[in-house]
Amino acid sequence: MNDAPVRVTVWNENVHESTGNPPSMAQDYPDGLHGAIAQAVAELVPGAQTRTAVLSDPEHGLSEEVLAQTDVLMWWGHVAHGDVADEVVDRVQRHVLAGMGLVVLHSGHFSKILIRLLGTTCSLAWRNEGKREVVWTVATAHPIAAGVPNPFVIEQQEMYGEPFDVPAPDELIFISAFPDGEVFRSGMTYLRGRGRIFYFSPGDQEYPVYHHPQVRRILANGVRWAHQPGLERAVPAVTNPATGPFSPSGD
Amino acid sequence: MNDAPVRVTVWNENVHESTGNPPSMAQDYPDGLHGAIAQAVAELVPGAQTRTAVLSDPEHGLSEEVLAQTDVLMWWGHVAHGDVADEVVDRVQRHVLAGMGLVVLHSGHFSKILIRLLGTTCSLAWRNEGKREVVWTVATAHPIAAGVPNPFVIEQQEMYGEPFDVPAPDELIFISAFPDGEVFRSGMTYLRGRGRIFYFSPGDQEYPVYHHPQVRRILANGVRWAHQPGLERAVPAVTNPATGPFSPSGD
Amino acid sequence: MNDAPVRVTVWNENVHESTGNPPSMAQDYPDGLHGAIAQAVAELVPGAQTRTAVLSDPEHGLSEEVLAQTDVLMWWGHVAHGDVADEVVDRVQRHVLAGMGLVVLHSGHFSKILIRLLGTTCSLAWRNEGKREVVWTVATAHPIAAGVPNPFVIEQQEMYGEPFDVPAPDELIFISAFPDGEVFRSGMTYLRGRGRIFYFSPGDQEYPVYHHPQVRRILANGVRWAHQPGLERAVPAVTNPATGPFSPSGD
Amino acid sequence: MNDAPVRVTVWNENVHESTGNPPSMAQDYPDGLHGAIAQAVAELVPGAQTRTAVLSDPEHGLSEEVLAQTDVLMWWGHVAHGDVADEVVDRVQRHVLAGMGLVVLHSGHFSKILIRLLGTTCSLAWRNEGKREVVWTVATAHPIAAGVPNPFVIEQQEMYGEPFDVPAPDELIFISAFPDGEVFRSGMTYLRGRGRIFYFSPGDQEYPVYHHPQVRRILANGVRWAHQPGLERAVPAVTNPATGPFSPSGD
Repeated sequence: MNDAPVRVTVWNENVHESTGNPPSMAQDYPDGLHGAIAQAVAELVPGAQTRTAVLSDPEHGLSEEVLAQTDVLMWWGHVAHGDVADEVVDRVQRHVLAGMGLVVLHSGHFSKILIRLLGTTCSLAWRNEGKREVVWTVATAHPIAAGVPNPFVIEQQEMYGEPFDVPAPDELIFISAFPDGEVFRSGMTYLRGRGRIFYFSPGDQEYPVYHHPQVRRILANGVRWAHQPGLERAVPAVTNPATGPFSPSGD
Repeated sequence: MNDAPVRVTVWNENVHESTGNPPSMAQDYPDGLHGAIAQAVAELVPGAQTRTAVLSDPEHGLSEEVLAQTDVLMWWGHVAHGDVADEVVDRVQRHVLAGMGLVVLHSGHFSKILIRLLGTTCSLAWRNEGKREVVWTVATAHPIAAGVPNPFVIEQQEMYGEPFDVPAPDELIFISAFPDGEVFRSGMTYLRGRGRIFYFSPGDQEYPVYHHPQVRRILANGVRWAHQPGLERAVPAVTNPATGPFSPSGD
Repeated sequence: MNDAPVRVTVWNENVHESTGNPPSMAQDYPDGLHGAIAQAVAELVPGAQTRTAVLSDPEHGLSEEVLAQTDVLMWWGHVAHGDVADEVVDRVQRHVLAGMGLVVLHSGHFSKILIRLLGTTCSLAWRNEGKREVVWTVATAHPIAAGVPNPFVIEQQEMYGEPFDVPAPDELIFISAFPDGEVFRSGMTYLRGRGRIFYFSPGDQEYPVYHHPQVRRILANGVRWAHQPGLERAVPAVTNPATGPFSPSGD
Repeated sequence: MNDAPVRVTVWNENVHESTGNPPSMAQDYPDGLHGAIAQAVAELVPGAQTRTAVLSDPEHGLSEEVLAQTDVLMWWGHVAHGDVADEVVDRVQRHVLAGMGLVVLHSGHFSKILIRLLGTTCSLAWRNEGKREVVWTVATAHPIAAGVPNPFVIEQQEMYGEPFDVPAPDELIFISAFPDGEVFRSGMTYLRGRGRIFYFSPGDQEYPVYHHPQVRRILANGVRWAHQPGLERAVPAVTNPATGPFSPSGD
């Protein structure tokens, strides 16, 4: 194994920020949601190299070159999913299947890239009343839950609830509860192609969730988990190998 | 496939009933918890043949002969887990691994048989205040959820909460929410050996939960799911087969 | 539960048949691959109502009306995946997510519909030398394996081998072995949306695999497993429910 | 996260070694199977601290103190499973459920500890003719497969074949093929309690398998995967918490 530092690109549509809506953004996230997320990763993942990219950048900041140098891509989108170019979605999907990690956050459940990779509608129930979210760990031995108290509480959050139309995850790590009786599978992993995907729902433009110490810890754990040091990126492809003995070491 | 009617044995420790504790048992469950459960199955599973067995029966009512004629065993226990003879647990485990279905209910999470089959402590958090349980379906395409509204509500229940120390299930079907912020994986399946196991948590000696129409429906669906018509029961065993061509149809 | 008979539509691109390539098709499959598959289902699933549809039909024979009356769609394609209209793929995906069963066969691993629903490349290794496939059951308690000898042998088959770029299945049922050392996850299930998907690899245009008694049995078991009697079809959708107490029975 | 070095205890029954059976042991494994395994870990896991323990040691070398200082326990047993004291098995199980990693090797499939933790018979088919095993990776993005060629070949091995009576794993990583048509799920992970379990089948007393570079790499990857740095060990236990608001950070 190779312990090269992880290179993380935090992508954000950056629309709430640029439109000042909600007004609390300026105070909660002076550097944008992407800024807060990148800062959490930079602080908590030793050696992490972070950069950010936004919708309005050329190619949304996700050129072939950027993706080739990204070990883990984090994705935050909400009101502008439809503005993400299909060509960029194709490129991101190709990189994930080839081995890039992907951490999809909150309203990113409805991003083109997650829908593409999971194959379902990714629909859910929601209601935004700023109520308490209690986050329970159900896979206590999973590295993404390392060091996380069980449960922890986010004082104010948008409610995301079941039914959440996603495939049964490879690993269900967190389940959240909301005061009016809703529950949500809030932390889940999926291996797809050669890549690792982590979806984590807590996080919203209206509440300072990305400053919560446990949320930050989980973002960092998720990045570490999704990172495959030393992996040579290659999209899985059809092969038509000759018959014959395999070489002794598979070389 | 064979559509032979399912033969169901409902096992109950029958201690709450025989000791009249809580006093509400006599009114809620005049025929015992096992009686109510068996009645739900008999009514809702076409052709089902039900019988009951209790702790105080010889061999707890679970002789070799009874198990050999049982397609699906349902299990309710609470205060007397320790009184179940290891020899009977061995026998039930052997039948499950050989193909008998097992539906474990509520406080049966702590039964010797479930702990034996799952290998973990099966511990959980609990608090009995008779509050509302909201049951969400998260595997909407699963046969055990067929016809069940999403969610449905049980007005009064004991709280069972995470962390629930069980293996990640083969299929997670239901998640329950309680008003003070707890959640629980309340419906789960496990294939073990040749047998099928369904754990379902709603149900308690203090509340008339087994008369709830959705709970009854789920019990019936669970029995149908766990039943393997026409299966010849055989415990998996080590084999040391000769080298040689397999016969064309595997006979 | 409802025991209404299952309505099955067998879709085949029907190109090998219409072009007489390979020439053995005429003898092995005088009614086409779809004909042989439909016959297996009609014979082995009590009450099944089968119909067939092919690429050259208007809307490929998969109009909204046909899909609305199809409980389980079976899919065989190979050389003409690219000729399937995206609009039809959209429609089929919508119906699967809304609750229609889907059984994808052999080279259908590379169909637009499976790639769409799974989100990966679905690539694999292959080599066609007409060698022996040994099919092992690894989920002995699964209904799709009911009555199937373990293992069974197909005397002549195309080799499909790992790495098979699909998500880890919800349930892995069969693993196949080929004489030169390849293995393949040959029977897998996926729940997606409200629908059930079964992929089964044995079956090829060059060999009479769909006349093999165990393959036919598995096709029938797969149809029964994928069928959800009485289900009202509905695509999962975002909801924004009001706060408030849930009604007692979830109505 | 904490990057403390992993402390590994390699347990071996040490019976083949002490009885000189087979005679090839002296040449293949001059330091015993445990010696070869410990050496692989020491070489390939940076900072690993290894020790060994054998059946004939007091308490089989697995005292409370040793286990408390063991992050990952590796287990090799074959002819003496029955001689392992139940009291020691209880202790190991307790430590695994409390967070210790466990790597079970080859014929350890039939160890008391694995059967206890998995709840099934763990039976399989076997035949020892020293033939070729081809090991395929089916979870290409899993850390235990990192750097492993797909496939790799072990020139001489005992055949272990399906049906392997274990629960469907949390993650299926490797599938092996043998020349006469058998297949085997040869690398699988299970989370149980707070602990992580990896079963890996290649490895036998008659063949120098533990000197194979890819097998050694997988042992090292498995140890790294099973290690939870900084985890405070605690067996999951029933709790009966008071009603009340959770504290903001779950403390």
